[in-house]
Amino acid sequence: MMDQLRIMQAQIKVPSDKNELPLLLESLLKTAAENKADMLTLPEMFCCPYQSSLFPVYAEPEGGFVYSLCAELAKKYSIYLSAGTMPESEAGKIYNTAYVFDRKGIQIARHRKMHMFDINIKNGQSFRESDTLCPGNSVTVFDTEFGKMGICVCFDFRFPELGRLMAADGARLVLCPASFNFTTGPAHWELMFRAEAMFNQYYAIGTAPALDKGASYHSWGHSIAVNPWGDVMCQLGTEEGIQVVELDLKETESVRAQLPLLNNRRTDIYSLTKLK
Amino acid sequence: MMDQLRIMQAQIKVPSDKNELPLLLESLLKTAAENKADMLTLPEMFCCPYQSSLFPVYAEPEGGFVYSLCAELAKKYSIYLSAGTMPESEAGKIYNTAYVFDRKGIQIARHRKMHMFDINIKNGQSFRESDTLCPGNSVTVFDTEFGKMGICVCFDFRFPELGRLMAADGARLVLCPASFNFTTGPAHWELMFRAEAMFNQYYAIGTAPALDKGASYHSWGHSIAVNPWGDVMCQLGTEEGIQVVELDLKETESVRAQLPLLNNRRTDIYSLTKLK
Repeated sequence: MMDQLRIMQAQIKVPSDKNELPLLLESLLKTAAENKADMLTLPEMFCCPYQSSLFPVYAEPEGGFVYSLCAELAKKYSIYLSAGTMPESEAGKIYNTAYVFDRKGIQIARHRKMHMFDINIKNGQSFRESDTLCPGNSVTVFDTEFGKMGICVCFDFRFPELGRLMAADGARLVLCPASFNFTTGPAHWELMFRAEAMFNQYYAIGTAPALDKGASYHSWGHSIAVNPWGDVMCQLGTEEGIQVVELDLKETESVRAQLPLLNNRRTDIYSLTKLK
Repeated sequence: MMDQLRIMQAQIKVPSDKNELPLLLESLLKTAAENKADMLTLPEMFCCPYQSSLFPVYAEPEGGFVYSLCAELAKKYSIYLSAGTMPESEAGKIYNTAYVFDRKGIQIARHRKMHMFDINIKNGQSFRESDTLCPGNSVTVFDTEFGKMGICVCFDFRFPELGRLMAADGARLVLCPASFNFTTGPAHWELMFRAEAMFNQYYAIGTAPALDKGASYHSWGHSIAVNPWGDVMCQLGTEEGIQVVELDLKETESVRAQLPLLNNRRTDIYSLTKLK
């Protein structure tokens, strides 16, 4: 198992035209290769404007145009690709789905966002994902040459049960394509990633779209990497940009040994389990 | 049910001589009354130096000297008293126990710290509570004229299962007598209180001893109050001091309605339950 993992996070603006994706993604994979990254991470809904009414319009079945493009480019550049999320259609339903492809372009994880983003903040952000999306039903932890990783999507990470279950399943790292806004972003974005990392003592990697003032949803950006001690390693602003971060995954085991939060759970007093 | 709750937090140095307690506590209760506080909160181990070897020396059975003093003063001043924690002896075992007394001096809550603080940080803090203490076995939520409150002790609040279970049991507020140190304090103190408040959308009140450079354990202090949106309302430094904070407990319901994190848990996918 390898411990040194180099990740490039791409905080891009979402193109409204899918035909721009091949050039855009190839240029990102190329930059990731030049930066000797082992993995490229993309934001939530990197290929579809974040708007409930558009999810059905942009949705594709698994194996569709965007999916295939991601698989091919991961293989071509031999880089793990956390392909943000895309609207996925299956049997008349639409999901907000995160795929991960390995260096051969093989899909090694699929996480359908399992907590719908339905909020209505007084004098702030309103949004109802459940108008057009269906939730997934699985906690997702998968194997890589760097050990186990978890993946969840944005609002999912606000639920400590999920973060904890990924740790219990062995995650040394959690990927979280996400898109907070100008209400929840300043209040909770960094706090959420630091909190999950601190409680569960793993790396937490959040990748968000850049702010696009012309879009109906204003993304807070701030793509972030947090270490297992809960420290912010690096964080972007709201503008387009990339950041490369080198993780030493042994830190997960080291922090857990010094401050044994996982072993000291009172599993005789409370029980957190997956039902499915 | 009343919604406006005024709390006075007392960040005191721990006297090594119990005979100093009557004057010290009476003066705090008196100040709380002058500040029109509904509740006074004291720190973890406010009546015993924080040192494993001393817990057995200072321990008393329930109803002992320190306990009775607290009950009497709560009644005399008609103020709720969250009596920090004290070493409690029962049947040859010692617990780190938090009591709460109501305005009549009647004990309405007892929480025995349930996660033992055993840590060994490289180039930092080491401590083993379990050398002399036994853990409690209960999640503690209790009724007041201000609705339900939870209480836990310091290291307990690092376990999101417990924070969540108190919310599920109806807590609008969690009291947490605590004592972080100069390793974990700067790293995690504020983050932990903000995180639990943000995830569970309740007020989180942490009360710590002041730094005593002559003591073997150096408390980080920083007594803190956080609102259900995860914002710090007020926070002390490391020195002795009091702070008075006015809570509007309706904020708990308001935040939960706007950002429905408790209702949107996927209880069909995961289950968090008390076993005892």
